[in-house]
Amino acid sequence: MAWDTEGTRRRLKEAATAEFAEHGPAGTTMAAIAERAGINKERLYKYFGDKQALFELVLSDELAKLAASVTPAAGGLEDIGEFAGRTFDYHTAHPELPRLLLWEGLAGGPVADEANRTAHYRRKALAYAAAQRDGVLDDDLDPAHLVFMIIALAAWWSAVPQLARMVTGADDNDPAEHARRRTFVVRAAQRLALPPEPPSVIRRAP
Amino acid sequence: MAWDTEGTRRRLKEAATAEFAEHGPAGTTMAAIAERAGINKERLYKYFGDKQALFELVLSDELAKLAASVTPAAGGLEDIGEFAGRTFDYHTAHPELPRLLLWEGLAGGPVADEANRTAHYRRKALAYAAAQRDGVLDDDLDPAHLVFMIIALAAWWSAVPQLARMVTGADDNDPAEHARRRTFVVRAAQRLALPPEPPSVIRRAP
Repeated sequence: MAWDTEGTRRRLKEAATAEFAEHGPAGTTMAAIAERAGINKERLYKYFGDKQALFELVLSDELAKLAASVTPAAGGLEDIGEFAGRTFDYHTAHPELPRLLLWEGLAGGPVADEANRTAHYRRKALAYAAAQRDGVLDDDLDPAHLVFMIIALAAWWSAVPQLARMVTGADDNDPAEHARRRTFVVRAAQRLALPPEPPSVIRRAP
Repeated sequence: MAWDTEGTRRRLKEAATAEFAEHGPAGTTMAAIAERAGINKERLYKYFGDKQALFELVLSDELAKLAASVTPAAGGLEDIGEFAGRTFDYHTAHPELPRLLLWEGLAGGPVADEANRTAHYRRKALAYAAAQRDGVLDDDLDPAHLVFMIIALAAWWSAVPQLARMVTGADDNDPAEHARRRTFVVRAAQRLALPPEPPSVIRRAP
């Protein structure tokens, strides 16, 4: 039945993504994933190896989707606010991604696709450092830490949604609150990263 | 044996804090907590009720310790950078707190001590709003969102330690890297919250 191999793999991976995002690797069994997909458990092992390998594959794939969907702005790092805003949109629309990242950190075990991810982030940090030298970004903050905190600006809302709800007093499904959060993310990224404008421009009229 | 009631309660709660921080509420059993404390499981139920009640108590207590340890600076919100730095120190020294917060969010169930925590954060947001009206803080950013993101500045490192390691290329146990992260947290909080200084002051000499 070669004709449905791809479909079977896809259904298994979708089920794995949903189960891992909900319950984490420790709280998920291969049997639960197979059952959710309605496919034989032996097939799951045959296609994807063991549970840890499958978790790492799922997380790597979700990160690859983020990288493909949210590319750096054409304007380069001058548009860092809008880049943070689009990353926020992505995390909000795909809360399974921040959840998978949190599960990975809490498990404290092997890190999915570590060499490639490290290289990706280190390239980003180098690009930020170059933009600082060119005066496109302010050089007040460590470039790698800035990369790390731009991710926090985008992902912290989905990482601790209960805290966001308590602090803002707003329902996280409220579209108006979503728009306000996005505005915050864009402005906060700009404030962190861009050179300060002259006070007459940045300050509101009294 | 009234003389050791307090000691027994304390040992049980310490064991519960450690187990919940490591494995989360879903991954922890009352039996494992009792065994870790070396105390009868019936005693655990008698003192603390069920597992959910115990988890909520543990998290509330850890949050109360944070609030008692990291009080707002005497100088008020002008010292927001140092306040963020001390909150970062606390989360780094007590990684069980950010872990408990993440487990709570991932579980998506009842929120520990929700009314008191909400009131606490809303008071903070009001204080930030007042400081913005008084010109102590810049009024560029929503005050509640700012409160929320100051927490991210302090806690994101312990929330996704594997990501921090990949992005910075540094071991999170390296004291020099810890000092650099703290410097970043202080400066970033100041950049987010304080009114911009005149360019001649904030910019480095060319």
